[in-house]
Amino acid sequence: MNLIYKGKTKDVYSLEQNQVLLKFKDDVTGENGVFDPGANTVGLTIDGAGKSGLKMTQFFFERLAEQGIATHFVSANLDEVSMVVKEATPFGKGLEVICRYRAVGSFLRRYAAYCQEGDALDAFVEVTIKDDERGDPTISDDALELLNILSKADYQELKSLTKKICGIIKTELAKKDLELYDIKLEFGRDKATGDLLLIDEISGGNMRVYKNGSYIAPLDLEKDFLGA
Amino acid sequence: MNLIYKGKTKDVYSLEQNQVLLKFKDDVTGENGVFDPGANTVGLTIDGAGKSGLKMTQFFFERLAEQGIATHFVSANLDEVSMVVKEATPFGKGLEVICRYRAVGSFLRRYAAYCQEGDALDAFVEVTIKDDERGDPTISDDALELLNILSKADYQELKSLTKKICGIIKTELAKKDLELYDIKLEFGRDKATGDLLLIDEISGGNMRVYKNGSYIAPLDLEKDFLGA
Repeated sequence: MNLIYKGKTKDVYSLEQNQVLLKFKDDVTGENGVFDPGANTVGLTIDGAGKSGLKMTQFFFERLAEQGIATHFVSANLDEVSMVVKEATPFGKGLEVICRYRAVGSFLRRYAAYCQEGDALDAFVEVTIKDDERGDPTISDDALELLNILSKADYQELKSLTKKICGIIKTELAKKDLELYDIKLEFGRDKATGDLLLIDEISGGNMRVYKNGSYIAPLDLEKDFLGA
Repeated sequence: MNLIYKGKTKDVYSLEQNQVLLKFKDDVTGENGVFDPGANTVGLTIDGAGKSGLKMTQFFFERLAEQGIATHFVSANLDEVSMVVKEATPFGKGLEVICRYRAVGSFLRRYAAYCQEGDALDAFVEVTIKDDERGDPTISDDALELLNILSKADYQELKSLTKKICGIIKTELAKKDLELYDIKLEFGRDKATGDLLLIDEISGGNMRVYKNGSYIAPLDLEKDFLGA
């Protein structure tokens, strides 16, 4: 099993038959020692963060599979804190597709002249390119096409699939009185078949969730949502 | 004649009959004493900068009128360094519509992972909101609609009108062997009729122009383009 990529929060190992193993780490993104899913740098290490993220991810990928959504998920091993997934090719050097239900985070920082914190955003979708050096800039469908990253048709497909997936996740969270404010997804194409797949993870580290108007930190979210 | 707004590079006075007078100043935007049309702060004062900008603006607004493009331009007075225009209502708190023929400036800073400086961009259009405090962030058609700034239909109209206008400007510049790399326009609605109008100015301060691969600073551009 060869290490092929050392990520900020996960390491990636090659397996046979177009599969890879993701080893979840206890490193989380953040700044000044505070866990911030929107940050681009590893801010701190929290015991159990990797396992917590994997439990959430397994839960959501299994729910999505039940609803017929294609994902890269194959199996999870909680003892090893690892997940086997189908190998996928990202779009360009990687895109993040963000779905926003309320104005917080970078949307609010950009557009505070036109909205208030917490305003409803009706499943607004936007795309950013993964580029730590340049702060993950947003990119329009026109620019994605111009730079040969994504066709207009693929953009529309990603956008409607994102709304569908995030609607399922929002509904699951709502069952525990948790409100999804925003979430980021990643997609790729199955290396073997070319099919569009939801990839990466779905955990507290990818979303902002509130309860009775208060933000719930990622690890507390997992305890609250999945129970002890 | 009442001063109604003191801008960075122009002051605005009220006139009768839904008209206003724009008084061009010698203040130009830039940083560290260098004229930079993309900057948000007044960087320096250059004798004659206001008159130079007005001459260019008058030239282009007159060419555009000949081609049937609706603009706010009524008349120019070079001695007074002022221009009478129709009063217009901006979209939201003001938008800038950028048309890019080559990758330079903020496009390159955002997307350098996918393009090289000077790459052809095929009249790529993007919109930014005027918001100095937040660095004039780009905004998508979806977000413009969500925030009630611009409908999808208005966005499409602005985009195609921008390509048409910038094509005319590019062609005029090319007659003097000058190449337009990018340009920003502003639009509004005629306060009297509601018609879509090209507003603001069209000068070296709104565009990047190159000659034989070298950038031409705004005042040199006016001398080169309009002659002594």
